[in-house]
Amino acid sequence: MENSRSGPTHLAEPGRHPDSDPSAFRIDSYLKQRAEFVERALDSVVASDGRPGAQLLEAMRYSLFAGGKRLRPILAIAACEAVGGDPADALGLACALEMIHTYSLIHDDLPCMDDDDLRRGRPTNHKVYGEAMATLAGDALLTDAFIVLARSHPNRASSAAVLDVVAELAQAAGSSGMVIGQALDILCEGKATDLATLEYLHARKTGALFLAAVRGGGLLGGGNPDQIDALTRYGRSIGLAFQVVDDVLDVEASADQLGKRTHKDDAHGKATYPALMGVAKSRQFARELKQRAIDALAAFDERARPLREIANFVVERSL
Amino acid sequence: MENSRSGPTHLAEPGRHPDSDPSAFRIDSYLKQRAEFVERALDSVVASDGRPGAQLLEAMRYSLFAGGKRLRPILAIAACEAVGGDPADALGLACALEMIHTYSLIHDDLPCMDDDDLRRGRPTNHKVYGEAMATLAGDALLTDAFIVLARSHPNRASSAAVLDVVAELAQAAGSSGMVIGQALDILCEGKATDLATLEYLHARKTGALFLAAVRGGGLLGGGNPDQIDALTRYGRSIGLAFQVVDDVLDVEASADQLGKRTHKDDAHGKATYPALMGVAKSRQFARELKQRAIDALAAFDERARPLREIANFVVERSL
Repeated sequence: MENSRSGPTHLAEPGRHPDSDPSAFRIDSYLKQRAEFVERALDSVVASDGRPGAQLLEAMRYSLFAGGKRLRPILAIAACEAVGGDPADALGLACALEMIHTYSLIHDDLPCMDDDDLRRGRPTNHKVYGEAMATLAGDALLTDAFIVLARSHPNRASSAAVLDVVAELAQAAGSSGMVIGQALDILCEGKATDLATLEYLHARKTGALFLAAVRGGGLLGGGNPDQIDALTRYGRSIGLAFQVVDDVLDVEASADQLGKRTHKDDAHGKATYPALMGVAKSRQFARELKQRAIDALAAFDERARPLREIANFVVERSL
Repeated sequence: MENSRSGPTHLAEPGRHPDSDPSAFRIDSYLKQRAEFVERALDSVVASDGRPGAQLLEAMRYSLFAGGKRLRPILAIAACEAVGGDPADALGLACALEMIHTYSLIHDDLPCMDDDDLRRGRPTNHKVYGEAMATLAGDALLTDAFIVLARSHPNRASSAAVLDVVAELAQAAGSSGMVIGQALDILCEGKATDLATLEYLHARKTGALFLAAVRGGGLLGGGNPDQIDALTRYGRSIGLAFQVVDDVLDVEASADQLGKRTHKDDAHGKATYPALMGVAKSRQFARELKQRAIDALAAFDERARPLREIANFVVERSL
């Protein structure tokens, strides 16, 4: 495995693969290494080459390299590793996920959507490049994501499997996934929303991409149907847990800590878990979801340790 | 072939396939039949099912069924037929092309882009559904296009070939294709532009999608490398010819005839072929490109007749 080179790039420190010494596993260094792995690939995939219109690439890179945690790509890689795959097998999907996530942030921040000026401590894309270029940068990141995935040629997955992952990723991001989630978010603004509606909305707005990450990573790593089923249950729980925690953070943290405007859900009249069930119950719910995610991985061996630790990380980062 | 059913739907009138009686071939009935074939498929692919957020699907369908000529999908199907494929083999790509073309029109019409109120004789998407929903409808059409293509399973093409077509389509639409073309269009507005720059811009803004249509159709129909090379030359010429003719139409026609605001290129300070080389020379250039397109198909038999006639149709519609 040390010398395999499938995908846009390869691991710089393959010797520090988590299963080489399980007792030494540290989630913080795992997250850091995998994030760097993804960032090197993104840097070569979305590269400015000095051709006319360089401003578009600059706008794409501005938001892509704004310091995200790369959680979706890392989940794809961890799921790929959990079924015995090489991190590089999921690298095309990992890049595609982060590009799609970034496009969604750029478009969500536009004046006609959430109208946000600040994201990860910096001015939002349209504040720097203007609305037209921000819209186009989002469009390009979304579109280019499918080039990267379609050209990734993982070792352990057939072309048919990659094609399935393309379809699942598009489904997670499109009119029955992330986009309908954002549309519902806008349509529900200021209206009384119950828990069932909120869960329906979040399963699409954030959950679908988390699910595509872990299912896709498993498929590209050559996972069998039982493993993919387990990853599906893990992915559903972790996606919802992430959103519940995000809502709690929005209520509790200051803008300084999060690097974006906080309490904005409340200001926009958006339904949140803390608003509907209170902060204490929201925390408890997030911990239940974390446990469900970990339980779903019962049949996996030590290679699923990163996935288990990520579930813990996602929930405990705030609570 | 009559009873084949690969793809979302099948031909309603397979007996009227053009090669059944070459002498009876009529381009107008060919275009009408193939457009209806694509429209039935689009109708089932982008279907409103009454779930929450139905307004998003409504906005997508509003622009998708606004009376376009379906030229890109028909080119994909005609290229597929030219190499001996069944029209249904290219149907997933055909739908994807029209969805991507439609998304680009919705986003181009936005206030932050070209700010147009009228498209195909009707109010533009954001005039009816608002800017947020129009942006999302475009995002969803672009994303869903990749579901349709990835799930199309043509008879004569391997999964690896479909994956190549996914990558080519994304490349044609993304940051080195249509999106950079639109970005350049905005960045060049009001500036002196020479012919070389204009050709560079149009090769991306419109040309890339035409090229992806004919190359993709050929690949999905099982075309050999020589055939794909010929289709590539045809696609380059026809794409540029289309744009030159579009520029001429914008200068000459009234808004009534085109169903959209005319002379808008001039009003926006955009470079056009008539502005740079005059109307008469633009017409001559379009006819030269048409001939180049037809010449590229010299090695094809009667099954390429639709492609030849489409080249003629595209150029002579205005001249």
